Amino acid sequence: MMTQPILLTDSEIELLHKELGTDTLMGKTITANQKDVEAFMQLPLDVPGHGEAGGYEHNRHKQNYTYMNLAGRLFLITKDDKYAAFVRELLALYAEKYLTFDFHVQKNTNPTGRLFHQILNEHCWLMFTSLAYSCVASTMSEEERQAVVERIFEPMLDMFTVKYAHDFDRIHNHGIWAVAAVGICGLALGKREYLEMSVYGLDRNDTGGFLAQISQLFAPSGYYMEGPYYHRYAIRPTCVFAEVIHRHMPEVDIYNYKNGVIGNTVQALLSTAYPNGEFPAMNDASRTMGITDMGVQVAVSVYSKHYASENGVDQNILGMAKIQDAVWMHPCGLELSNAYKAASAEQEIGMPFWPSVELNEGPEGHSGAQGFIRMQDKKGDVSQLVMNYGQHGMGHGNFDTLGITFFNRGQEVLREYGFCRWVNVEPKFGGRYLDENKSYARQTIAHNAVTIDEQCQNNFDVDRADSVHGLPHFFKVEDTAINGMSAFANDHYQGFNMQRSVFMLNLEELESPLLLDLYRLDSTKGGEGEHQYDYSHQYEGQIVRTNFEYVANKELNTLGNDFGYQHLWNVASGEVNGTALVSWLQNNTYYTWLGASSNDNAEIIFTRSGANDPSFNLRSEPAFILRSKGESTLFASVLETHGYFNEEFEQSVSARGEVQNIEVIGHSAMGSVIEITTKKSRVTVMISNQIDATDTTEHNIELNDKTYSWTGFYSLEVNLINPMSAELEK
Amino acid sequence: MMTQPILLTDSEIELLHKELGTDTLMGKTITANQKDVEAFMQLPLDVPGHGEAGGYEHNRHKQNYTYMNLAGRLFLITKDDKYAAFVRELLALYAEKYLTFDFHVQKNTNPTGRLFHQILNEHCWLMFTSLAYSCVASTMSEEERQAVVERIFEPMLDMFTVKYAHDFDRIHNHGIWAVAAVGICGLALGKREYLEMSVYGLDRNDTGGFLAQISQLFAPSGYYMEGPYYHRYAIRPTCVFAEVIHRHMPEVDIYNYKNGVIGNTVQALLSTAYPNGEFPAMNDASRTMGITDMGVQVAVSVYSKHYASENGVDQNILGMAKIQDAVWMHPCGLELSNAYKAASAEQEIGMPFWPSVELNEGPEGHSGAQGFIRMQDKKGDVSQLVMNYGQHGMGHGNFDTLGITFFNRGQEVLREYGFCRWVNVEPKFGGRYLDENKSYARQTIAHNAVTIDEQCQNNFDVDRADSVHGLPHFFKVEDTAINGMSAFANDHYQGFNMQRSVFMLNLEELESPLLLDLYRLDSTKGGEGEHQYDYSHQYEGQIVRTNFEYVANKELNTLGNDFGYQHLWNVASGEVNGTALVSWLQNNTYYTWLGASSNDNAEIIFTRSGANDPSFNLRSEPAFILRSKGESTLFASVLETHGYFNEEFEQSVSARGEVQNIEVIGHSAMGSVIEITTKKSRVTVMISNQIDATDTTEHNIELNDKTYSWTGFYSLEVNLINPMSAELEK
Repeated sequence: MMTQPILLTDSEIELLHKELGTDTLMGKTITANQKDVEAFMQLPLDVPGHGEAGGYEHNRHKQNYTYMNLAGRLFLITKDDKYAAFVRELLALYAEKYLTFDFHVQKNTNPTGRLFHQILNEHCWLMFTSLAYSCVASTMSEEERQAVVERIFEPMLDMFTVKYAHDFDRIHNHGIWAVAAVGICGLALGKREYLEMSVYGLDRNDTGGFLAQISQLFAPSGYYMEGPYYHRYAIRPTCVFAEVIHRHMPEVDIYNYKNGVIGNTVQALLSTAYPNGEFPAMNDASRTMGITDMGVQVAVSVYSKHYASENGVDQNILGMAKIQDAVWMHPCGLELSNAYKAASAEQEIGMPFWPSVELNEGPEGHSGAQGFIRMQDKKGDVSQLVMNYGQHGMGHGNFDTLGITFFNRGQEVLREYGFCRWVNVEPKFGGRYLDENKSYARQTIAHNAVTIDEQCQNNFDVDRADSVHGLPHFFKVEDTAINGMSAFANDHYQGFNMQRSVFMLNLEELESPLLLDLYRLDSTKGGEGEHQYDYSHQYEGQIVRTNFEYVANKELNTLGNDFGYQHLWNVASGEVNGTALVSWLQNNTYYTWLGASSNDNAEIIFTRSGANDPSFNLRSEPAFILRSKGESTLFASVLETHGYFNEEFEQSVSARGEVQNIEVIGHSAMGSVIEITTKKSRVTVMISNQIDATDTTEHNIELNDKTYSWTGFYSLEVNLINPMSAELEK
Repeated sequence: MMTQPILLTDSEIELLHKELGTDTLMGKTITANQKDVEAFMQLPLDVPGHGEAGGYEHNRHKQNYTYMNLAGRLFLITKDDKYAAFVRELLALYAEKYLTFDFHVQKNTNPTGRLFHQILNEHCWLMFTSLAYSCVASTMSEEERQAVVERIFEPMLDMFTVKYAHDFDRIHNHGIWAVAAVGICGLALGKREYLEMSVYGLDRNDTGGFLAQISQLFAPSGYYMEGPYYHRYAIRPTCVFAEVIHRHMPEVDIYNYKNGVIGNTVQALLSTAYPNGEFPAMNDASRTMGITDMGVQVAVSVYSKHYASENGVDQNILGMAKIQDAVWMHPCGLELSNAYKAASAEQEIGMPFWPSVELNEGPEGHSGAQGFIRMQDKKGDVSQLVMNYGQHGMGHGNFDTLGITFFNRGQEVLREYGFCRWVNVEPKFGGRYLDENKSYARQTIAHNAVTIDEQCQNNFDVDRADSVHGLPHFFKVEDTAINGMSAFANDHYQGFNMQRSVFMLNLEELESPLLLDLYRLDSTKGGEGEHQYDYSHQYEGQIVRTNFEYVANKELNTLGNDFGYQHLWNVASGEVNGTALVSWLQNNTYYTWLGASSNDNAEIIFTRSGANDPSFNLRSEPAFILRSKGESTLFASVLETHGYFNEEFEQSVSARGEVQNIEVIGHSAMGSVIEITTKKSRVTVMISNQIDATDTTEHNIELNDKTYSWTGFYSLEVNLINPMSAELEK
């Protein structure tokens, strides 16, 4: 049998050939890939031996498979044999050397390969190299093919399915790489049995293999519990292998499998992204990963080809392609490129404005959710609010249930620290996770949440955290004036129920949606007595003003001794009477935060990360904490986005915000009532604290001899302040 | 008389009209200006009363004149009366209100205006508004013109030349705005006497006026002693008024005046810019000002029109226009736009690669200099090294003689803090200079220099600093292997001579030019005894590794009590034996610094700014200091630029550098000898420490029983290490 290209037919190749030199997304992609591959082809071929994780050898093998994968297709598309020659020669070198390398010494629980320190990477190598081989095999002599098959591919297949058989059927994101690699290599070798076992599991009994994986790894919403960073890593073999199955096992009807789980999970992944295309760094992740990642490019192309509606490719998908400025070099990508070209001819493609979405978690979707609310301001800028009220994200999850992040004007404002790891930076512990990831980045205090008594949620116990999850209360995004979500976390601190309700409010007098945040701590189920509640905010930029006096410490000590507090310098602090105001400048935008608690004591503490960091592993970043001591407590705060600063052009407008105050009127098991005052209006928000409330539940709450009543989860009242009466009140 | 456009003839207007809607630089400029002006025209007209510096009122008046200035010309170019109507109506409002405003209350030594807190801003207003008026006067009724002339322009002219006559003839950068405003307004009113007094001074005796200013403000090199930040501010009225004089007083032959001082000083300004177009923040300046500033756009256009060589506009000027992506909306800008279009048709315009240049200071060029050395790496990236060995930059100058900054790969690596000021941010002290500007940003320790005994240069005494300057030793930039400059500062610390010699070396095995820095402190003229020398480095990014043990402090104290040390936290420190290595990651690039001193003791101290900063006025930025105690001392260090890191794509290459060591072989009054070892070669550099050396001076220096000899200022020897013998040495 003569191996044929696995992912391309002759007629598809001809269509791609016609894109050469054009300025379509596909044309640009081909040109960019040619440039990259040719630059790499200038270097002498190298198949190095063992090296450190993140070191030269690791990176070189990764580059080798990356460029072989591109070169294989470029050979077909351009018909230029130089690309095929590159693949042939490099494969020959691997065939010569591969079996001379022993297995790496095992350093942790991951099985090791001959090229890489963990077989995950060897799976990647095999998947991409098999695809490349399938493109150029027709140009190779029988002898050349035999060397590659016998001295690389067959030993690898044997390793993955026999030596490491126990690992092959594991339901895990790494497992997708394993089955995709084995299935595709089997096809390339004409050994269909490997494709069968990859799709259906070694024992063909649904306990392993690709179909079991995609059935079990994702929640009904499509969300992947390890978060978007790991999701985008798994999405690449998922989509590539789905396309292979689509072409070579049409009987599976893979794109309709389980109500279209492939499309569903791609959509879920895309719907987490910030408006600029970056993924929120949820659950122990990089802060810089975004939709331009190659895996997401493949996913967007596959989605465009197989899940476009009858009206064609969705505007938001086109918007994402605009950010990516590239497509998958494949007929799926050509579909997207063509749609983009057609749509561009009619009007300029805008940035994506993905709808708000609540993504449930757990196999049945009953283990809480991740909430994503988006709202546009008058100029079209998108504010995005993210709250985690789902599951703990497996072994390396953060302890941040009810944590939020907030993004607008192109930047994350209430920020996620992200993981403490310098990926592939060999002198930084081989690019692996650093100790400070556990001691700081995953702790509750490192997030935008409330830390009780200087402890971490679930006491930093992963097993305990895995056994609990958030409880969704409401997710309401239909209104134009107010969007919001609320959830409980009643199992994360012993003796406490916690409820967080976050909203975006469109007020006529404000430039951007106002973030409103109510965080309630209920200690009546065993947490009686006074507690310390630290409501923390990770920001970036320069403090511009406050409405209270504070003292900058003359010498710096840590804020505490454990649970992340040992890494925070106590930079400055001040007592607050009533509502605290903290205003800062982040790049070109001013932010003003006003916060209060229901207790009559409060303190603002300004911190900076970097204490007890003997190897400079942490970034030095500021935060401020509203600390309040009491029994059951409600924190209420708003964050206003306003003005513009440009240092280069020496412009500054609206450096002070419009919001004047926020006040806790009261709270009880029934509900919470707060009042916001701006220069123009008085805004009352009443929300339900009853976990079993519905849209028709009646609420009545008596506070200060006044009865507040509303139906359903919450109520918003906006009253314009009469300038006359406002004057009289003074 | 009917007022005609001052800066445009009818035929020029026709040429500009033809650019409408094109994608030339001029076409794009016009479109962008239309968009900006039209957005502003949407707002209701407003001529507000007194306000705070940096506040709404201040900004509004500034916006008003900015957009009137553009609208006047847009009316002529587009022939659309809406732009003229905007100017007419806004001028009418000013005419109605101007005299009803009293003069601002004077808060410092600056005279105040009716619109602004200092007349500098009122000068700007008058210059731009007079130009706008000249464009639209023909569309106004006699009554409208009369109101503007009698109720704004004449009172302003009177204020500037009578009430504040004592200030009008001052030779100062602010004075250029004064004379330009008065001269141009006089022309607009047909009162040529104001033009005469603006050009020749009130008394027409060369002690004041534009010609005296441009003769005296700039050094023969064209350098302006307050640095590029203030220079770019002065360059706008300089160029605008020069063009006015060119057109209305051709007898002055302004562009050839004093051997072309206008062109000379424009070129000097441009030649200071970093490769990305930003200006080094020399002398108490903003870090974000660059050639895209409107003043520099005007200057580049004027230069292109009047100083192009017979071969047309210089490639570097075109490169700057590429960064600016705009031109002055004037025939001068059209000249540049046309040249750009013609050159683009032949080949892609590259980024500018300005030649290395030494810009002398002082009226005769004898007060030291500012040195700028640029070198390209193999991929075309430009490294730029800047050293200050000139004058103290007037009242707000930094105390940083012999300070350096270093830039490559698109970022400043050895960094200048810049001023401590949030320009126009009203809640930050009205946008004015903050206390920490004096107590930190201008102190020697805030710069990349050596601080002796925790004191500031010249004891932070401005008068003393104004009386001394650096002494240039050599500036050599002809060689391809090594470029360098050296200077003395013998009057800045009592009892000490200081010499700094900085080089960029092109070594075959390195990706980028290697920065070599020799800083010698000679205490033999009265500074006998042991002293503490702090050789400091302001960097940005994350420490990756060191070659010595250090202790991160468990509590933080300030590094000292005065001269800026009170603002530095002592974060960590460690003793060093031999050569210290500090490696860090700044964005996508690794930097490795190796440093040693001739003393047998050394310590590295890691600091962070922000101590004793009660209002968060300082930015939190890291630095490290090599501290060495001894008598006369030589510091020798190299900074290697290497590798690539991309978090998003999880790529890391060459995280460790090639340079292995640097060693001080010895130093004396005759010379210094150091040796650098890389993985491939041993590099010996010998340099002259004799202030009266020439290119032919013979140097002999005996160190460790070996004689080092060379002719001229320095000598470079590169010896490949024999791999055999290197092996044997182990």
